[in-house]
Order: sequence, then C-alpha cells, then structure tokens
Amino acid sequence: MKGTHEHRLRVRYGETDQMGRAHHASYVLYLEEARTRMMADRGWSYAEMERRGLGLPVRRMEVRFRQGAGFDEEIVVRTRVTGRRHASITFGCEVVSAGDGSRLAEATVELACVDLTSDPPHPVALPKGLLEILAD
Amino acid sequence: MKGTHEHRLRVRYGETDQMGRAHHASYVLYLEEARTRMMADRGWSYAEMERRGLGLPVRRMEVRFRQGAGFDEEIVVRTRVTGRRHASITFGCEVVSAGDGSRLAEATVELACVDLTSDPPHPVALPKGLLEILAD
Amino acid sequence: MKGTHEHRLRVRYGETDQMGRAHHASYVLYLEEARTRMMADRGWSYAEMERRGLGLPVRRMEVRFRQGAGFDEEIVVRTRVTGRRHASITFGCEVVSAGDGSRLAEATVELACVDLTSDPPHPVALPKGLLEILAD
Amino acid sequence: MKGTHEHRLRVRYGETDQMGRAHHASYVLYLEEARTRMMADRGWSYAEMERRGLGLPVRRMEVRFRQGAGFDEEIVVRTRVTGRRHASITFGCEVVSAGDGSRLAEATVELACVDLTSDPPHPVALPKGLLEILAD
Repeated sequence: MKGTHEHRLRVRYGETDQMGRAHHASYVLYLEEARTRMMADRGWSYAEMERRGLGLPVRRMEVRFRQGAGFDEEIVVRTRVTGRRHASITFGCEVVSAGDGSRLAEATVELACVDLTSDPPHPVALPKGLLEILAD
Repeated sequence: MKGTHEHRLRVRYGETDQMGRAHHASYVLYLEEARTRMMADRGWSYAEMERRGLGLPVRRMEVRFRQGAGFDEEIVVRTRVTGRRHASITFGCEVVSAGDGSRLAEATVELACVDLTSDPPHPVALPKGLLEILAD
Repeated sequence: MKGTHEHRLRVRYGETDQMGRAHHASYVLYLEEARTRMMADRGWSYAEMERRGLGLPVRRMEVRFRQGAGFDEEIVVRTRVTGRRHASITFGCEVVSAGDGSRLAEATVELACVDLTSDPPHPVALPKGLLEILAD
Repeated sequence: MKGTHEHRLRVRYGETDQMGRAHHASYVLYLEEARTRMMADRGWSYAEMERRGLGLPVRRMEVRFRQGAGFDEEIVVRTRVTGRRHASITFGCEVVSAGDGSRLAEATVELACVDLTSDPPHPVALPKGLLEILAD
C-alpha cells in the first residue's frame, strides 16, 4: 500500500498550447490530481479533511520539464512522500509517457497543513491518519 | 454609466491550444472577467456581494464562435444586460478583435442569484443595488 | 458501439472555484474530454485527424447548469450525436453525478470540420470514417 | 527601460479554488503573462518570435507561495532577468498584493530557447535582439 503511487491520465485538448504540447501549467493540475488519488487509494479523503477544517495548500513547488506531452497522450504520474515535518509534507513526483516510459518531468511539491478556520490559515500538525497512510 | 460595457484583455499563451488560437473554454473566463469589471466599474463589488452571502452562479451560457483569437491578441469584450427576472439576470456579450474590430464570438450568459448560505443554494431576489447599476 | 457514450472523470481541486463547486468553464473541458474518448473508444483518433490536416473546432456551445459538482466528485458525461451536416456535427451531452445519478448539466456542442492548412481554416466535408463511427 | 518590469492584473473568479484563493496553478499563468508583457513593453514580440520558428518553453520553474490572493484582488508581478546562458534565460519573479504590497509569492523560471521547426525542438542561441532588450 505504501511507497510510490501511480496515476494515469490523458492530456486534454484544452491543456495543450500553440507549441502543440501540454502547457507547463497543466502539469501542476496533473500533480495535484495524482496526490488526491494517492490519498484516496490509501483510504484518505482530502475532500473530507477540508470539511473538517484542515487543508493542504501548496507552499512550494519545483518542476523540471524534460520533454513535452502531446494531446491525448497517456501519461503516468508517480508520487511518493520524500519528507515530513510537523506541519508540512513533501512529495517527489515523476511524470513519464505511458507509451515508451520516457521521462517528461520531475517535481517536488511541499504542502503546508493549515487550519482553514483561522484567517489567515495557520499551520497545524498533520493529522495522524494522514501520516499513517503516507508513511513509507 | 449604463449601456454596453467594454473590457480589454490579451490572450495568454497558456490559453491557446494546439490549433494556435485561444481555446474555446478560455472565452468563458474572458466573459466572466468582463462581467466582474462591468460591475466593478459601476461601483458594485461582486467579491463583497459573496462575502454578504449572495452569489451569481452561471445557470446557462451559449457561445457562438466566429473566428479565432491568437496569442497576445488584444480583444474587446462588450457586455450589456439583456434580461432581468426576479432572481436571475442575463448578459449579452460580443467579443471582437481590438485590432480590426472583427467579430470573434457572441454569447448569452444567464446568472441565477442565490443564497450561498443555504445548501443547495436557493434562488433569491437580485439585490436592489445590483439592479440599479445594471439598469439600462 | 453506437448510441450514447459514457465517460467518467473526477473534479480536480484546481477546477473548483470559491463557491466550492467545479467552475462552469471546467465543464467545457469535461465535455471535450468526453468527445475525445468517444471517438477513441470507437477507433477514431482525433489527434491523428489533426495530423492529417483536419480539425473540429467548436462553433457553438450551449450549456445549462443544474447542480454543482464538488471536488473529487465522480461524474459521468454522456455524449451522443444529435445532428450531422456536410461540414459540421452536433453533440448532445448530459453530465450526471456518478453517485446518485442526479443531473448536473446538459449541453449541445456543434463542431465545424475545417481544413487546418488553410488560413483561416475553411469548412470541409466530415471524413467518411468519422461519420461512420458517429452514426447512430 | 531595463531592470525590473511590473505587470498588474486581477485574479479571475475561475482562477480561485474552494479554499477561496487563487489556485497555485494560476500563478504560473500570471508569471507567463508578465514575461510576455515585459518583452512586449521593451519592443520584443514573443508571438512574432514563434512565427519565425523560435520558442521559449519553460524548462524549470520554482514557486514559493507565501500568502493567498483573493478573487478580484489586484496583484503586481515583478519580473527581472537573473541569468542568461547561450540557449536559456532565467527570470526572477515576485508577486505582491497591489493593495498593501504584501508578498504573495516568489518564483524562478528558466526558459530554454529552441528551434520549433526541429522535432523534438533542439536548443539554439538566444536571438541577439532578445538578449539586448533583456540586458540589465
């Protein structure tokens, strides 16, 4: 159940740009979708977490683009936890082409855990249940 | 102050698709931005309206695309009120190229006025202040 | 193989807006993804069609929104062909919640068939192969 | 004419997410728009550059998010060149609230200069004209 999670998706037409490849901002949505599915596949609903007043906004992201993904190309997003602190968690991601496995992008995304009922949202400890499903 | 409102914007790179033109979903954002600025230019803050618990979700939209807008092309969105009912308002929109005035698209967008504090949001009368600034 | 096509997807976090529901522009992408999959599931690659110089830009769309879709909600997009002319094709779409089947939106989308190698792209007859896979 | 460039824009409704702030992927579009305007304000058309067969795809981006931007909030994107190599250019960006100047985000974006007529696009030297307008 633990380790690296894989999520497959296809590039939508509206996500391409006039260079004929998925626009770089689209990858940000792919990475996010993959994190959501990673949590869901391990039994953690991020939607429910927000309803309970806790959120995981992105604090920092770094993406390295290697090769473009074309329209309707199937891609695989591999996500794993690479770091945990009291009130933040870091994911390491790799995006590859489902066809030939070629590397499209790599990313590191750090999420803060915050109390959404405070304004501005202040950092709080990661819930125990989330830590458990994200442990290596 | 009344009548047709004009809003200018430029097509972002990420809004183009591989046909080399603004993707049709981008126009939906352009129309929305134009409505927001129309209200703001007439002294009505939609952001403030939502903070007071009232919202204007889109209930129906129809867009007719005539000609594509290219990357960084300046376009003009002309918006006017074409209909009002107790709990809804309809906008007629026209999108033209700022350069030669050629017609890019036309749209009709109907917004419902709802109470955001109810679940699901139920229809409520349009606020008087909004009606006034949107009157012809 | 013919008739109504069903495509399932989940609402991404970045597709929600501050009303807490999928933004209305997101549906435009959902409808497009469903059309792409409908063609692909019937053996027609729209990507390949564009490589051969033919495209299907949206000429007109009408969407009626009934109920919001929440973050990570699974939705079903049902697509069927409702009209065909020499150089255009019309799709009728229905978006429902996968959970309880409640109606979220309906749409009509008309696509023009154009020669992408001409500028501006001019209308051309729908390819025979596409007509066949989209016949009722 | 040189140094840091400032670009102002407002957060669109469709760019917010259910946390009530501009979604982190939206900043990627803001940064891109700011770069486009920076070049344009200095007399360089990126659209024209692509028509001549040269492109500037993003090779790496890093964004640090500090504070959320709300719907219709006016923000300022400050962009400056922080690095240049033979076939790449790096921008340092700062996003602040136009209201109180508070820091919303910082970013570093590295663009490769490529020949769009080759497949895959291979690196080529930055055009002299672009180097000149981006020199400090």
